[in-house]
Amino acid sequence: MSLTVSLLLVALCANGGYGEERKEAQRTGHVSVVIVGGTGDLARKYLWQGFFQLYVDQVSGGNTFSFYGGGLSPSEKATPILFEILKAVTCSKDVSQERCAILKDQFLRLSQYRQLKALEDYQELAKHIEQQLQQEGMTEAGRLFYLSVPAFTYAGIAEKINSSCRPTDGSWLRVVLEKPFGHNYRSAQVLATELLGALKDEEMYRIDHYLGKQVVSKILPFRMENRKLLGPIWNRHHIERIEIVLKETLDVKGRIAFYDEYGVIRDVLQNHLTEVMALLTMKLPANVSNSGEVLRNKLEVLSSMLPLGKNQAVIGQYQNYKTEVQQELNKTKEHVSLTPTFAAVLAHIDEAQYEGVPVLLISGKMLDERVGYARVLFKNDVFCLQSQNNVHCKPKQIVFYFGHGSLKYPAVLVSKNLFKPALTGGEWKEVTEHKDVSVLGLQISDYYVQTPTTEREAYAELVSHIFAGQKNNFVSTENLLASWEVWTPLLSGLKGSFPRIYPGGADNEDMLDVHLRGKELRYSSEVVIISPDNKMGGTSGNSFQVMQGKFRNAEMVSAWTEELVERLAADMQEAAEAAVQEGGVFHLALSGGSTPIALFHRLVLHHFSFPWRDTHVWMVDERCVPLTEMESNFHNMHEHLLHHVKIPYYNIHPMPVQLNQRLCVEEDGGAQLYEKEINKLVNGSSFHFVLLGVGYDGHTASLFPGGKLNEPGESLVALTESPIKPHQRMSLTFGAINRAHTVALLMMGKGKHELVTQLSRVLDNLEKYPVTGVKPANGRLVWYIDYDALLG
Amino acid sequence: MSLTVSLLLVALCANGGYGEERKEAQRTGHVSVVIVGGTGDLARKYLWQGFFQLYVDQVSGGNTFSFYGGGLSPSEKATPILFEILKAVTCSKDVSQERCAILKDQFLRLSQYRQLKALEDYQELAKHIEQQLQQEGMTEAGRLFYLSVPAFTYAGIAEKINSSCRPTDGSWLRVVLEKPFGHNYRSAQVLATELLGALKDEEMYRIDHYLGKQVVSKILPFRMENRKLLGPIWNRHHIERIEIVLKETLDVKGRIAFYDEYGVIRDVLQNHLTEVMALLTMKLPANVSNSGEVLRNKLEVLSSMLPLGKNQAVIGQYQNYKTEVQQELNKTKEHVSLTPTFAAVLAHIDEAQYEGVPVLLISGKMLDERVGYARVLFKNDVFCLQSQNNVHCKPKQIVFYFGHGSLKYPAVLVSKNLFKPALTGGEWKEVTEHKDVSVLGLQISDYYVQTPTTEREAYAELVSHIFAGQKNNFVSTENLLASWEVWTPLLSGLKGSFPRIYPGGADNEDMLDVHLRGKELRYSSEVVIISPDNKMGGTSGNSFQVMQGKFRNAEMVSAWTEELVERLAADMQEAAEAAVQEGGVFHLALSGGSTPIALFHRLVLHHFSFPWRDTHVWMVDERCVPLTEMESNFHNMHEHLLHHVKIPYYNIHPMPVQLNQRLCVEEDGGAQLYEKEINKLVNGSSFHFVLLGVGYDGHTASLFPGGKLNEPGESLVALTESPIKPHQRMSLTFGAINRAHTVALLMMGKGKHELVTQLSRVLDNLEKYPVTGVKPANGRLVWYIDYDALLG
Repeated sequence: MSLTVSLLLVALCANGGYGEERKEAQRTGHVSVVIVGGTGDLARKYLWQGFFQLYVDQVSGGNTFSFYGGGLSPSEKATPILFEILKAVTCSKDVSQERCAILKDQFLRLSQYRQLKALEDYQELAKHIEQQLQQEGMTEAGRLFYLSVPAFTYAGIAEKINSSCRPTDGSWLRVVLEKPFGHNYRSAQVLATELLGALKDEEMYRIDHYLGKQVVSKILPFRMENRKLLGPIWNRHHIERIEIVLKETLDVKGRIAFYDEYGVIRDVLQNHLTEVMALLTMKLPANVSNSGEVLRNKLEVLSSMLPLGKNQAVIGQYQNYKTEVQQELNKTKEHVSLTPTFAAVLAHIDEAQYEGVPVLLISGKMLDERVGYARVLFKNDVFCLQSQNNVHCKPKQIVFYFGHGSLKYPAVLVSKNLFKPALTGGEWKEVTEHKDVSVLGLQISDYYVQTPTTEREAYAELVSHIFAGQKNNFVSTENLLASWEVWTPLLSGLKGSFPRIYPGGADNEDMLDVHLRGKELRYSSEVVIISPDNKMGGTSGNSFQVMQGKFRNAEMVSAWTEELVERLAADMQEAAEAAVQEGGVFHLALSGGSTPIALFHRLVLHHFSFPWRDTHVWMVDERCVPLTEMESNFHNMHEHLLHHVKIPYYNIHPMPVQLNQRLCVEEDGGAQLYEKEINKLVNGSSFHFVLLGVGYDGHTASLFPGGKLNEPGESLVALTESPIKPHQRMSLTFGAINRAHTVALLMMGKGKHELVTQLSRVLDNLEKYPVTGVKPANGRLVWYIDYDALLG
Repeated sequence: MSLTVSLLLVALCANGGYGEERKEAQRTGHVSVVIVGGTGDLARKYLWQGFFQLYVDQVSGGNTFSFYGGGLSPSEKATPILFEILKAVTCSKDVSQERCAILKDQFLRLSQYRQLKALEDYQELAKHIEQQLQQEGMTEAGRLFYLSVPAFTYAGIAEKINSSCRPTDGSWLRVVLEKPFGHNYRSAQVLATELLGALKDEEMYRIDHYLGKQVVSKILPFRMENRKLLGPIWNRHHIERIEIVLKETLDVKGRIAFYDEYGVIRDVLQNHLTEVMALLTMKLPANVSNSGEVLRNKLEVLSSMLPLGKNQAVIGQYQNYKTEVQQELNKTKEHVSLTPTFAAVLAHIDEAQYEGVPVLLISGKMLDERVGYARVLFKNDVFCLQSQNNVHCKPKQIVFYFGHGSLKYPAVLVSKNLFKPALTGGEWKEVTEHKDVSVLGLQISDYYVQTPTTEREAYAELVSHIFAGQKNNFVSTENLLASWEVWTPLLSGLKGSFPRIYPGGADNEDMLDVHLRGKELRYSSEVVIISPDNKMGGTSGNSFQVMQGKFRNAEMVSAWTEELVERLAADMQEAAEAAVQEGGVFHLALSGGSTPIALFHRLVLHHFSFPWRDTHVWMVDERCVPLTEMESNFHNMHEHLLHHVKIPYYNIHPMPVQLNQRLCVEEDGGAQLYEKEINKLVNGSSFHFVLLGVGYDGHTASLFPGGKLNEPGESLVALTESPIKPHQRMSLTFGAINRAHTVALLMMGKGKHELVTQLSRVLDNLEKYPVTGVKPANGRLVWYIDYDALLG
């Protein structure tokens, strides 16, 4: 079958089920495939095989093809190498040997090597393609560039493609990129911006080959097909936890130059494991092939992840890594690399559906076993009164088994005490005969097991998607950046952290086991089992870290930021409990600004028994903007605190900055209204606890230097003016503040050090330092100052 | 040692640690103990032994004693019986044989039988006591009446005691009562009221002997002593579930006449297991011996239990029970008793601290083993990467083991992967040598084990508390009623339910295993493992139970109440998702009243993925009362819905019925204010979904028959008048309602049947049947009518 003959074949709509979302059918015609880096490792191992597979699948689909292997080497040197690779491609079992030989022969004849170095090379390639189209009188369908080259060359190549290789009007251009896509949020953004200068977003296909793995790409369809059964249990009330694990036995010898820059978090967790997590937890799209919806829902779940900090991760490095680095990077014996080759991370998704469900992401080199899986473990929801060995007393779980390990093949496993999963289409089959093997705590016979009818390579799978213009299994720019937004703070937080050194293989024993402590993760062998006797000793954690003293003749508590916040939260709860005990209610007035956010998080994540039901929350001050705007103090407090605790609606008292559809107009009497509310609800108008911050200029609440209202007066609430935008504010006055039972003044960060120094020296000067006016008449004033602010 | 000699002994403060809370020390002097029913079973088995123990402990404590066994029989007949019992009392091991003989001899000499039948008998008893006091010149300390008689006699005896046996001024009267304290809320309340006519609350000691069991009374001190370690994990984030189990091997032969009236729920769950649950989950008091605080905190946790209905319980009856009933109650072979001898109940505590933590209460007769325990199972918070047999990979739990079972002795067990518990005082010791025994899934060597130094009988323990006037281990009237409030609806709900019949003993196998489905409980063998194939058939659950039709020319959905509510909730979620998908927001207007409560519960408990974040909740109507009052529609909606879902503060729109510190005054313009808010936020002022109910008089929203505003007009919100209190209302008008995309009209219950019949016949008549004015201009109207309302 010659090129011209294949042109004449009738276009068959044979898109293998991936074409649902294309609004307009792709024009059939000639397709030019260019693998830049066409003689490299990845191309040799997977890509050419993937494109040959595509050719076999599409040869009778109405399109014609040319294939180009591109590279920096001159043609005469690289051509034999390329053909060596091409000759190694194979057909799948369902193709007869005879047909396979013909197809391979055709594929080789359609392929050629081209040097792609300078702009001219790309221009010539373009000219070549156009000439061929003209000569053979072919319509062009599109051009596919697969960049299998180091990431730093992406921008340059994209620019060359843009300026010289764009196809004729009406044909598509698709440029495929391999990770790494940056090494943090910033660099990913720079790269994305550069690429968007040359290519449209829809022209870019960022590959995560995990998304091409059959079991991974089965996750969404599986959730969909079994949605009736999964729907009621796919939530925090039923899911105990989610584990996404990729264990490898190999080391990274030979790849250190690359690996040492990246490490396991960038290499595996930020991309592969994050994608799997998103597939498991995203809202189900109406159509799993609708890329827009799939990517949007993925973005949503990524955006709702709680921030990851170093308390959410543990890292390790296999023992020999150090030597390998010294050798491959020509370093001295003293050189220490902190690059992790193992990491376990504890993620949480801040959605009601998954609230409190731990998501573990774990990967490492040099472990005892090669295996990858995602396991959704359900809660133990059976109570066995007399029988204990019945199947219904065992763990309930769904395992997406990517391959290898004890099972050896990819499979979806559903424990038989859950349900029998649907089996649709012919691509998956049920396995009922097993050898005796145990998978994640259950015998294989305790599972319903499904496996692909034919195993397919991830790359071949993804190449067919690219050809079909189907983007749901690729990484969009938005999603890439959202993922980096999650991971970058963790990577920064871990900077300078020493990984635990592990021997590798079975010798690791329990060294890498981890322990979940609420929202935090530790190596389990770090978790000391404390007997209360130990606690009785003189150096209990708290007394050692927290210092008490005097500041401006008032009490001062000082500590490192984390301990300071812990202490303040504990003090606040104590005050709350005492007030509720005494009078059944706790009146708390909170400041806006960013300083209290850490406190809010602490209260939300650790103080479950805080008596919110009996707590009334008041505002110390507010900006004259609608409550729903980001700038609003109330909005800030709502997002970080109120939305996450169970406080009755009527106990929440935002300041009435908006009345009669306008903001802070004196005659609308908002300040007086708030004052009336305070007088009505708060006994003696004395708040139990007022939390204040201090601005760089010495202001507190919204009482600014030079303001009129800085002298104690009769009113409790007033409109004030800020020197910075938004200028208009509503604020409690000193009259209200100094009536409180307890006033806490919180100052944190090195930036406040100078102010702390000044405040420690000056006398009361309300004109210049309004904060010096805080002097509770019958109450307590406590300064909470972290070591950064105190010591600089 | 004679009576007079013991009087001379110096008063020693030997209250065994229970005297902390007595504000004033008890006067020492003479104590008269009267056991009414003194020759009965309980007295024989436990009470006399308990009082002898008290005598031994107190003989050198400055008090003197007389003991009276009272009963209906004449003295000559009962005296020998009483002394037979008294001779059988024994000393504890730490008392020498010689001393024991002396003490027993004294005890017998201080004891006598008295007939206590008529009022005169009590009067004579009183006279006797007073004469003795006078003769011996003794001060009186107090009188203790222990009523070990059927509950129906309590009120009469209490009255006799009150009228004739009150001690002299300054001495105490304590009357001890044994359960049953009623058989439901109503009867418990009647009994409590009767008793309070004769006795002061502080004079009554309601015994729950479980509270005297050493391990049970250790729960609070244990939580207290280990509070530093338990505090951080004693919450929903760490506790997987709580199980409180009392398994018995005996049947109830010989006690049927009593038992058949009560059953296992009233006999064990309502009292013993509920008390244990309260001890495990109540807020820790500052002082575990402060009765006021302990009882208050118990009351708090009882009040915060989610209501128990029949979906929260399964019941069983052992096979032979039927025959036993027929024999003992002289019934025919056809007689069927529905009294449960086994029950498992799933409770939830609606506090942030325990949200979602299942609490299982289980008890039964004729099971495979005699054992009682409370187990707090913690979440699996360890991920074992390579090791699986290490102790830290095993379940974490604390077990309060009441006794019997495989361990044979009472103990507190803490799994070693948790912490080493404190050991304080000499009353408990650590056990380190074990025989090889497994307790609740762990080897005994995997636990830290503590057991009482000396085993003490529950009754002896409680008798010492009564003597000390220490009430924290007794059941207060308030707490008793709170417990009945929890259990009575379940008992009513189970009325007519058939218990599962079980053979008894080991033969029960897995018949009584239970399965937790969210907030519901089932026998696990009832839980069908559904394959989706079954679902594909023609009779899927929903289509079978839910009927669709027409009503007043609009759509109608009809079903049994539960399915109807399920369907309405599902429809509402569907509407919400569609609206959010389309415009990013869902505007929902909800009616007040009790009809929607079931719907609210359904939404809270089952619709985790309801898009609350993007939902705005508006009120259909409101009563002119402050929002915080029980009568307020908003308050109702808040308590049943808003407080339990994660909806942003600014998405909640109560009607402004209170302005300028007054309610619904026309010139305050509340209705106009609400209208403005609707106009501003709701696109076209068209709510996506309006939920309405219909009153018996045909009113809907707060638009009543004969009202002025029943004709469609321009305004969206208006003040209206209700024929019933509170008269003043604020309501959406037909103008607002008929602008909605979907209006759901919900009618449920037999009481609405007549109205449904009328409505099916009448033409539109807004004057008489305001609900006939609901006619969405461009939207859908759907009637949701349950079979009770539809079919009567």
